[in-house]
Amino acid sequence: MKVEIFSSYIMKLLCACNTGYKMARPQTDIDAGRTTLLEVVDDLVRKRGAVDISMTDLAAAAGMSPSNLYRFFDNKEALLEAVAERFFAEKVRIMVDVTESDLPVQDKMYQFFARRYLAMVEQYEAEPDLLKSYLEIGQQYFEVVRGYVDLGDHYLSLIVAEAMELGYFEGLSIDEAVSLINQMVQCYTNPDALFFVGTTKLRVEKLATIIETIFRGLGKKSSAHTLAQPHIRIVS
Amino acid sequence: MKVEIFSSYIMKLLCACNTGYKMARPQTDIDAGRTTLLEVVDDLVRKRGAVDISMTDLAAAAGMSPSNLYRFFDNKEALLEAVAERFFAEKVRIMVDVTESDLPVQDKMYQFFARRYLAMVEQYEAEPDLLKSYLEIGQQYFEVVRGYVDLGDHYLSLIVAEAMELGYFEGLSIDEAVSLINQMVQCYTNPDALFFVGTTKLRVEKLATIIETIFRGLGKKSSAHTLAQPHIRIVS
Repeated sequence: MKVEIFSSYIMKLLCACNTGYKMARPQTDIDAGRTTLLEVVDDLVRKRGAVDISMTDLAAAAGMSPSNLYRFFDNKEALLEAVAERFFAEKVRIMVDVTESDLPVQDKMYQFFARRYLAMVEQYEAEPDLLKSYLEIGQQYFEVVRGYVDLGDHYLSLIVAEAMELGYFEGLSIDEAVSLINQMVQCYTNPDALFFVGTTKLRVEKLATIIETIFRGLGKKSSAHTLAQPHIRIVS
Repeated sequence: MKVEIFSSYIMKLLCACNTGYKMARPQTDIDAGRTTLLEVVDDLVRKRGAVDISMTDLAAAAGMSPSNLYRFFDNKEALLEAVAERFFAEKVRIMVDVTESDLPVQDKMYQFFARRYLAMVEQYEAEPDLLKSYLEIGQQYFEVVRGYVDLGDHYLSLIVAEAMELGYFEGLSIDEAVSLINQMVQCYTNPDALFFVGTTKLRVEKLATIIETIFRGLGKKSSAHTLAQPHIRIVS
């Protein structure tokens, strides 16, 4: 169908998903410590917003020595990856669940976006400022977030491939369809939209209509109609 | 067709559009002075970013006394409105041109979004930092921007009404169709998308496909297919 070339990071994420969403790690005390430390990170972000958090800050806030902190996270990069893993955990679980489900393909795509959107709304309604700060941190360290964006595209491409086998999205490649679909549902995947569009205008019922529109209308069916290009036709 | 209720601000904008995009103002020396001062504002924003600009700052930067500055702008609100008017001038001109053109309705909608998108890309490519700063200022003073957002919805609703007369978007109200279309083309109207999606992924060819998808697929045609709601059906 399509040769997927994954970075080592996304491969690691995919492996993590297939083994119950956790890195293989037998030390349960280390796991528990990491979870507690990530809650301390939440508190620091709540207090200080999206300012950079150093390992020293975190150790101080957790009341432990920096050397003790390094037992839990090898370095700041490992800490940031753990923060991202926790931030995206539920969304990854939803993507795996929906992709593996036996729903009809259009329902599958709808659930794929709607359930993650609702999870995002929950985060937003519980603590909008905390979400906003984490989004800013995510922009600062986009290389860590990148893997999760790619992971979303990977799962969406599985659903698109399934739809194509049923005759949908004719004449488009999987990548083209994935890109167009991502653009058309952007408001429901980009958490910033919660702040600038708002949950009054963003509704899963509208998302359902958008997914229906995509399944009915997306594809290069033979059509005599060609759109006038803006750089050719200038209406003066 | 639809009773439009406009705020006094959007009425003023609409009047301005119908009289050659300018407030009626016979004093050409005042006009020229305002234009020069708005260029000084550009320079201030270039130097200092999206920090708040006071009338005192602007007077100093323009080398004039504050009382002289008030000859050109009655108050800070008038200054901000003039900044917004200048920022949106070309986009308003495009909306008027396209809406009044005799293009087929699908082309019209495409041009409505594509030409404004290309104008935005031009701004972005010329001075990305200046655009970013103005976007931040626009968020701080959203009440000034709001009128232009409403104006966009007004012109889009004219195109939607025309399409509906031809049988498109069946079963939807004008407002419902406008809202859904705005959501589906969000990437091409929200200038922030230039920064977080980028002009490599955003292409007018894709926008053309999205508009085609909307014309083919959007509407409540009778369909046996109903999507499973995420709050009802939980895939565990």
